[in-house]
Amino acid sequence: MTEVETTGAWLSREDLDNARERLPILYVHAIPVRADDKGVVTHIGLLLRADSDGGIGQEVVGGRVLYHEKVRDALMRHIETDLGPVALPRIPLSPQPFTVAEFFPTPGVTPFHDPRQHAVSLAFVVTVMGDCRPQKDALDLSWVTPEEAATIASGPEMSGSHGVLVRQALAHVGYPV
Amino acid sequence: MTEVETTGAWLSREDLDNARERLPILYVHAIPVRADDKGVVTHIGLLLRADSDGGIGQEVVGGRVLYHEKVRDALMRHIETDLGPVALPRIPLSPQPFTVAEFFPTPGVTPFHDPRQHAVSLAFVVTVMGDCRPQKDALDLSWVTPEEAATIASGPEMSGSHGVLVRQALAHVGYPV
Amino acid sequence: MTEVETTGAWLSREDLDNARERLPILYVHAIPVRADDKGVVTHIGLLLRADSDGGIGQEVVGGRVLYHEKVRDALMRHIETDLGPVALPRIPLSPQPFTVAEFFPTPGVTPFHDPRQHAVSLAFVVTVMGDCRPQKDALDLSWVTPEEAATIASGPEMSGSHGVLVRQALAHVGYPV
Amino acid sequence: MTEVETTGAWLSREDLDNARERLPILYVHAIPVRADDKGVVTHIGLLLRADSDGGIGQEVVGGRVLYHEKVRDALMRHIETDLGPVALPRIPLSPQPFTVAEFFPTPGVTPFHDPRQHAVSLAFVVTVMGDCRPQKDALDLSWVTPEEAATIASGPEMSGSHGVLVRQALAHVGYPV
Repeated sequence: MTEVETTGAWLSREDLDNARERLPILYVHAIPVRADDKGVVTHIGLLLRADSDGGIGQEVVGGRVLYHEKVRDALMRHIETDLGPVALPRIPLSPQPFTVAEFFPTPGVTPFHDPRQHAVSLAFVVTVMGDCRPQKDALDLSWVTPEEAATIASGPEMSGSHGVLVRQALAHVGYPV
Repeated sequence: MTEVETTGAWLSREDLDNARERLPILYVHAIPVRADDKGVVTHIGLLLRADSDGGIGQEVVGGRVLYHEKVRDALMRHIETDLGPVALPRIPLSPQPFTVAEFFPTPGVTPFHDPRQHAVSLAFVVTVMGDCRPQKDALDLSWVTPEEAATIASGPEMSGSHGVLVRQALAHVGYPV
Repeated sequence: MTEVETTGAWLSREDLDNARERLPILYVHAIPVRADDKGVVTHIGLLLRADSDGGIGQEVVGGRVLYHEKVRDALMRHIETDLGPVALPRIPLSPQPFTVAEFFPTPGVTPFHDPRQHAVSLAFVVTVMGDCRPQKDALDLSWVTPEEAATIASGPEMSGSHGVLVRQALAHVGYPV
Repeated sequence: MTEVETTGAWLSREDLDNARERLPILYVHAIPVRADDKGVVTHIGLLLRADSDGGIGQEVVGGRVLYHEKVRDALMRHIETDLGPVALPRIPLSPQPFTVAEFFPTPGVTPFHDPRQHAVSLAFVVTVMGDCRPQKDALDLSWVTPEEAATIASGPEMSGSHGVLVRQALAHVGYPV
């Protein structure tokens, strides 16, 4: 859940750090997928990123919703930021997320953990139709089958939080987790 | 909810009529929509069809799920049957319908009524990306805005059942019904 | 969406006002209902409250999610705050809201408006089993049928935002809006 | 998915067998749970049943929807049939199932398999508040934690189909599968 916002920030870094200690921060996450013409998910896109603590791990797309930004716009912005400008995402028609992931700064309160903040994320599965390339802080983007994603999501390559999100997304699209 | 099945029927017309008097029949309905690149629904597709009782009315896409047919395949088949082979629907990723519409042969049991049968329908909102043309028994296909659809769906042009489905679909995609 | 927090506030009023100008604020809303033993909604609970601008209007239950508070706990807290300590709500099992309502300080951006802030609300329909009494700033609590609620929600007694939420909730539980 | 219907059958056994070879049959499944006052699932109820092929296995509640029976009524009937008359289920308010499970007579078409028929099941998580006792063909009812259920659902005690349903239900209620 790395987030680098050099432009478009509504808060200074200091103010944001301050708010993060006192308010839940609204996030969106997108599990990027490829699907066949019947809507069956064939591949999941996983980003390889350096952790803040020096390790590397697989993640899905996500980040903060800004002041006066719609959830759809935040989804679009983070997908473009992470997968590039021609990913051509099919943003979901309904505002209903498949789940709400509550990241707590204290481990173990929920299945989701973020040491920096209390973040509450609306999670969506999003088909991307175009070319995707890892941007900026992402080292690689790999497309794996649902079977492979289910395995990776339970393993050490993926943080507990992002692994849980991926497996809950797989369950939502009908895959046997 | 007209349904003409000259090919691909797994039951003879007589057997189907027989079953319709004794079992709930599984249906799918699709509310066909156009959406912008942020997933905001801009238009709803409504089919003009002759009723079995000689009137004409606006309807959405739908029909029976056949034996050994997956729900996704039934959705695809009925969209192609009603909107043509190059409608290019984006079949939803999740098997979770936005609602389940229970059509009863007795009016007033639920908001949905079908004099021919007890039909239980899985309802989905489906973006179509390609060219759509009314097929066979449909007289016309019109694309209307969500505002117009909400009005039509409450009026005499649309059967109570299909009108309810359209308005529930609009609510699901965040439109103020 | 009045909110009085004399205790348990994680932010001073000044700091909160400050954050409200720069971050989306996470909310929950609960549409309180009575249901029969088959889960059919029979009544909707509407709170009569004084508006900040001197009028009075019908509202549903809702308020802010606090720092380090789970969404479930926020739902429970606001239901107890608005309906009293023995309302006995049946908090939903799934974190999936039926919709996400985006209240913008600028009218017309979405169907939801809050002049004070950009609030993003997770909305749930919640059965309450016990005795409910309006608390503190609520003048009255009335239980109306779904038909009555649908009418009130479209009328002048209810703000556009809360009216939209109520009608979307009715659609979600299968009522013909 | 054993089903014994000595009363209330709308079809003779022979007619039902006949229909099962030619139409998808509508089912409901309920994953019975206990929850705390915040809606957190604390226990899952699993039925021990003799298989048609002489083995025994863990299952959830489920069965056919009858002609002219509402989905809510079918859920209630099967819960009472399987868990007894004082299980006091809280039937969900919305007709939207958390998933649709498509049981095919041919193994491997979907994650769900039923050698007898093509059954399409609307699946719900249902809180039961009262005393539950296994009825008729069930040998035992055990209440296990979500952790235990997740393990059992992946193991040999549970058929693939019912195991998949339980794990998808756990994901839906926010549990890390």
